[in-house]
Amino acid sequence: MPIFNLDERLARDTTLLTRLGLCQLRLMHDSRWPWIMLVPQREGICEVFDMTPLDQTMLTFETAMTAKALKQVTGCDKINVGALGNQVRQFHQHLIARSEGDAAWPGPVWGHGEARPWDDAARTDFTTRLLDAL
Amino acid sequence: MPIFNLDERLARDTTLLTRLGLCQLRLMHDSRWPWIMLVPQREGICEVFDMTPLDQTMLTFETAMTAKALKQVTGCDKINVGALGNQVRQFHQHLIARSEGDAAWPGPVWGHGEARPWDDAARTDFTTRLLDAL
Repeated sequence: MPIFNLDERLARDTTLLTRLGLCQLRLMHDSRWPWIMLVPQREGICEVFDMTPLDQTMLTFETAMTAKALKQVTGCDKINVGALGNQVRQFHQHLIARSEGDAAWPGPVWGHGEARPWDDAARTDFTTRLLDAL
Repeated sequence: MPIFNLDERLARDTTLLTRLGLCQLRLMHDSRWPWIMLVPQREGICEVFDMTPLDQTMLTFETAMTAKALKQVTGCDKINVGALGNQVRQFHQHLIARSEGDAAWPGPVWGHGEARPWDDAARTDFTTRLLDAL
């Protein structure tokens, strides 16, 4: 696989959980929601159409697989999937488990209030169950 | 193709532009951003993983194709792609052309202020150029 450099801000805001076929699966440093991220391990990808058709398909399957596991583990009402990239241009796809009445419901989580760090026990519990479900 | 019923709120907030292989391509009734939507013409789809793998792949290709046309036509800085569904559960994917300094920049558009209707000439111009680019 060619060299892949993770954007500095993504590196600071997230922790690597595992590598899938195409993407790194990373945990967002914000415990207000179960919030994970897929980052294709490719250089120079900004928009979805910058990827090859095969990589696009891989991203789709990894998104679906990860979203299903996230829903199963959290029992949430809805998975939010988004690739915005206004602040960080390296392509990254958010997956967030949303439940009625959560801190930003029914609005989006991006830009809402301040991140709340995970405590170690809760993070270990969540990430263990998520990786088991994958 | 089996019967497909569009959610009432999506029908009210958007206008059909064209039908692609899987999705309806629809224009959002908000001229603050070039903002379009893909809705797979399938019944009972809420999450991306509710679709068959083939439909997921179709959605991906239609997303990439539409995002590329939207960027080409608008010259925007970044395409935002998102499937949230907190308010409307029928699966729908937003594509929004974002530019530095726009009304919500760098935050998300969802839930930001009040929609501003298109005037007829601007809508015709935008949609004609978008459909030509597709």
